[in-house]
Amino acid sequence: MSWRLTAADLPDLARGATLLGTGGGGDPYIGTQLVEQVLGEGFIEILDPDEIADDLFVIPTAQMGAPTVMIEKIPAGTEPTLALRTLEEHLGRTADATMPIECGGINSMIPLLVAAETGLPVVDADGMGRAFPELSMETFAVYGVHGSPLALAGERGERVIIDTGDDDRQMEWLARGITIRLGGVAHIAEYAMTGADVRRTAVPRTISMALALGRAIRIARERHESPVSAIADTLSTTLYPHVRELFVGKVSDVERRTTEGFAKGRATIASVDPASKDTIELTFQNENLIARRGETVVAIVPDLICVVDAESCEPITTEGLRYGQRVRVLGISTPEMMRTPDALATFGPSAFGLTEAFVPVEARD
Amino acid sequence: MSWRLTAADLPDLARGATLLGTGGGGDPYIGTQLVEQVLGEGFIEILDPDEIADDLFVIPTAQMGAPTVMIEKIPAGTEPTLALRTLEEHLGRTADATMPIECGGINSMIPLLVAAETGLPVVDADGMGRAFPELSMETFAVYGVHGSPLALAGERGERVIIDTGDDDRQMEWLARGITIRLGGVAHIAEYAMTGADVRRTAVPRTISMALALGRAIRIARERHESPVSAIADTLSTTLYPHVRELFVGKVSDVERRTTEGFAKGRATIASVDPASKDTIELTFQNENLIARRGETVVAIVPDLICVVDAESCEPITTEGLRYGQRVRVLGISTPEMMRTPDALATFGPSAFGLTEAFVPVEARD
Repeated sequence: MSWRLTAADLPDLARGATLLGTGGGGDPYIGTQLVEQVLGEGFIEILDPDEIADDLFVIPTAQMGAPTVMIEKIPAGTEPTLALRTLEEHLGRTADATMPIECGGINSMIPLLVAAETGLPVVDADGMGRAFPELSMETFAVYGVHGSPLALAGERGERVIIDTGDDDRQMEWLARGITIRLGGVAHIAEYAMTGADVRRTAVPRTISMALALGRAIRIARERHESPVSAIADTLSTTLYPHVRELFVGKVSDVERRTTEGFAKGRATIASVDPASKDTIELTFQNENLIARRGETVVAIVPDLICVVDAESCEPITTEGLRYGQRVRVLGISTPEMMRTPDALATFGPSAFGLTEAFVPVEARD
Repeated sequence: MSWRLTAADLPDLARGATLLGTGGGGDPYIGTQLVEQVLGEGFIEILDPDEIADDLFVIPTAQMGAPTVMIEKIPAGTEPTLALRTLEEHLGRTADATMPIECGGINSMIPLLVAAETGLPVVDADGMGRAFPELSMETFAVYGVHGSPLALAGERGERVIIDTGDDDRQMEWLARGITIRLGGVAHIAEYAMTGADVRRTAVPRTISMALALGRAIRIARERHESPVSAIADTLSTTLYPHVRELFVGKVSDVERRTTEGFAKGRATIASVDPASKDTIELTFQNENLIARRGETVVAIVPDLICVVDAESCEPITTEGLRYGQRVRVLGISTPEMMRTPDALATFGPSAFGLTEAFVPVEARD
């Protein structure tokens, strides 16, 4: 069902999008501020992917960069629309709608900012179903829509168009090089496609889902109910039906560095029981990639590994992890379209240099 | 005067262009092979800048990268024309001619390769009057024609368009980032301009001059005359009238590294007299930037500092310098249009981080 999003929805959407960011994706809070400022009392039309015309022309928009830089380098707000306009001009065709390429983190907000500025509607779907660190890690690409040509805009009005044909990894590699040279953050428009392509290649209704998750966590808190149960209840009727609590403990160690345009590192979470040696270790590249409990892998990409505050269930990004925080680690199953052999080759463990095989989080003992 | 260039001219042109490369610019030998292959028995129309129409539409073409990489990574040959076509498509306008942006080194050959492939004529002028390491170091830019939009092509058909408005240094910075990620070499089309712009902003007749220099050195050798005198005689009627022999000796030390997409380092040349402590030290970033004899600066960028074989006067690039080589170091005056305050701000000593002031090579004692 298509629906209207207003500024009042933004805090819940940001909370849900941070959860789907699985530790990365950038903090959407700055994004909510930018959207609110432009949207005011207005609304954004959110289009259900099942209801759009086959020939609707959709240009997705996003921010690119390391989350650790994003929180220090705030965009002017006009760059994503400049990226969209640059791609429209290059293609000689104007967009009928925009869409997220990534529903997790700040990239849940960027298409809303474009929509608020241009009046375009936003398609309720995305190409990651969560957050991933690279532009090539898209269900769009897995199912045959490629990212090129990509348009990129910088904060001083720089405009770059990159066309690597069907080679999305080379597109990512070149766009990342430009982003690093622009100071670590840029805004992009890419994966232009039709409504029919959206239905075939996108993860559907992820904006709605992020909003529902954020709202459920808030309402559970207000009612003094369990936010973890609220998350599980909300997801039970979606393409993400399995939620597992992998660990409860306190952050005992965080190693984090920004390198080659990514925030890489690992975090250890120890039991709150001083007598216990039990720990869980998370390795991340922007997003959490793998969770090991002792020697045992308990969750692995592309399943979602989410760290939340132990009490409030407020999602915590990798750059927000601090020594001593009391947290819960949740494992959430990704949609089946993200677990096919082609999908796993694009954003499964081996795409991150991990040698461990993918095993669904719900299949582990 | 406009004239026709044939494959028989290429060896002399390459020799002259290497001299004008002032140690950098890349080895034009590979370029001559590529041009010969395409040109066969044909010819290339070389247009005198004083004879072209005001509205002739000129798109210069070039190779970009570190010379040390260029000699190991040989282009397929089709990339420069792909860059030209990409810029034509972006601008919605076809070129009437191409032109070098840099008359020194391999970039003397790239526009000829494009001409041989497309049938376009080549304007006898360029924007450096020698070689420089960065795309922003152009008389074009000094006199008001900017490089954006720039089109860049990679060996696997990658196409990139960069538009930084009037900011040519940002254009260079971003294009360099892409070039590094393409393995160190890329081909570009940029500084699109009219015939009237060429007359206002370009260093005229530098292809003719490179060819005349290369030919004069060869003929002097054949006649057992002094090639140094032949160089001085040839230049005496050009915009480069002053030639000084700065040193004769043997290479005693070379430090060279490829970093950030450039070949940087220094070379020391010592007297052949073992009793003498006399040396000259050259510092280079792709090209020779400064020559110091002991504590005294004897030549500095943008004047040309050229190392040639002591006997044959064959020019030697910085990557060709070897311990023990007997060499001469020549200082050659640049055209006056390259010595104005704006020109010196763009490619004078301070543009390379040198604190020494520019003093014309002919003004030193």
